[in-house]
Amino acid sequence: MTIRMYDLAGADPAVRFSPYCWRIRMALAHKGLAVETIPWRFVEKDVIAFSGQGFVPVLRDGDTVAHDSWAIAEYLDKTYADRPPLMDGEQGRALANFARHYSQNVLASTIMKAILPDVFHALAAKDQPYFRESREKRLGAPLESFSTTPEAALASMSQAMSPLRAVLKEQPFVNGRHPAFADYCVFGAFMWARNTSPVKLVAEDDPVYAWRERMLDLYDGLARKSARATA
Amino acid sequence: MTIRMYDLAGADPAVRFSPYCWRIRMALAHKGLAVETIPWRFVEKDVIAFSGQGFVPVLRDGDTVAHDSWAIAEYLDKTYADRPPLMDGEQGRALANFARHYSQNVLASTIMKAILPDVFHALAAKDQPYFRESREKRLGAPLESFSTTPEAALASMSQAMSPLRAVLKEQPFVNGRHPAFADYCVFGAFMWARNTSPVKLVAEDDPVYAWRERMLDLYDGLARKSARATA
Repeated sequence: MTIRMYDLAGADPAVRFSPYCWRIRMALAHKGLAVETIPWRFVEKDVIAFSGQGFVPVLRDGDTVAHDSWAIAEYLDKTYADRPPLMDGEQGRALANFARHYSQNVLASTIMKAILPDVFHALAAKDQPYFRESREKRLGAPLESFSTTPEAALASMSQAMSPLRAVLKEQPFVNGRHPAFADYCVFGAFMWARNTSPVKLVAEDDPVYAWRERMLDLYDGLARKSARATA
Repeated sequence: MTIRMYDLAGADPAVRFSPYCWRIRMALAHKGLAVETIPWRFVEKDVIAFSGQGFVPVLRDGDTVAHDSWAIAEYLDKTYADRPPLMDGEQGRALANFARHYSQNVLASTIMKAILPDVFHALAAKDQPYFRESREKRLGAPLESFSTTPEAALASMSQAMSPLRAVLKEQPFVNGRHPAFADYCVFGAFMWARNTSPVKLVAEDDPVYAWRERMLDLYDGLARKSARATA
């Protein structure tokens, strides 16, 4: 039976941009597992209530229901242990967790400041009030206050990417010679921006740019072919 | 034959504070290898000329000479493969490299701004002109301009430690259940501060504080027992 994944969608249901869902889209492709994605909106809490909580990704694999991208990655490695590991060994797992937190606490929080109004505009109309209220409460400021200049976005990203850039000068992927879950966590943050916003986050001569191109090409261009919101 | 390591020393030769040398002190203890450290000062380039370059750590192990903390860690894993690995597997190695760059580009560069004048004062007199000239050239500003208030140091560190803090809420060491080279890379940056400066970098209720305490206790308190510069 095909795996099904509830995946955050925009006003255009083809547009998928959740960084956490992209981690799992890439992880499933890494494992060679087919998936049927189901477009989901923030306010459709009832649709995923069977998972016991209200956020995506939610995975249904036969009788198993899993949520939370980290827990799903662990589930996939355990269940499909004969396929290429997302996290290999105790150190591989522990350090992927570090890369994951870097992608959330440093990268995504920097990207957010450059794209928040664009994310808002990409959302389905019924999601916009929820998004505005929840984000403005969390951030303590209006969404529009997070718009930035192209120069400021590039500069703050350049700073945030500093350890990522350094490692990608020395190896093709965060995980080494081959991409794996740490790469997908970091890449998810970039897909969030790519599919919602025209903002330029990475200079073309940056090693992170070339890495992102390699990631976009993976699995027959899975990410590259994905739909982007139109302004 | 005992391994020998050239180790940056301060005005008091017992005071050792190079973050790169601390990585290797911890790595050698991890491997259960005894080491004789030789105090070395920045201007003593001739003393380590046999290594083909001018920076410590330099390791002499029988007929082998190694320099650069990353290369030394790889040498130790290869040569002492029957002992606990510093970096385990392709992912463990690749992601330790990411943690290493985080420790240098994010943590150490933040710590530096809080301790640079203290590092200067801890140095041997003959090292001070070299240190001032090389650092002021690199940073484009006088050493003294990097002195900071205790509040500013704590605040900038809190920000820089954000992914480290998040991961240490979930696992006891950066490397998982047991410390290994990624931990030693991050810890080296903290030892640089500890042995040169009285500045407080981490709040006591921070998970990073408890981790640092665990690191200080490792190997019979190797790091905790080490000498600190007196103001």
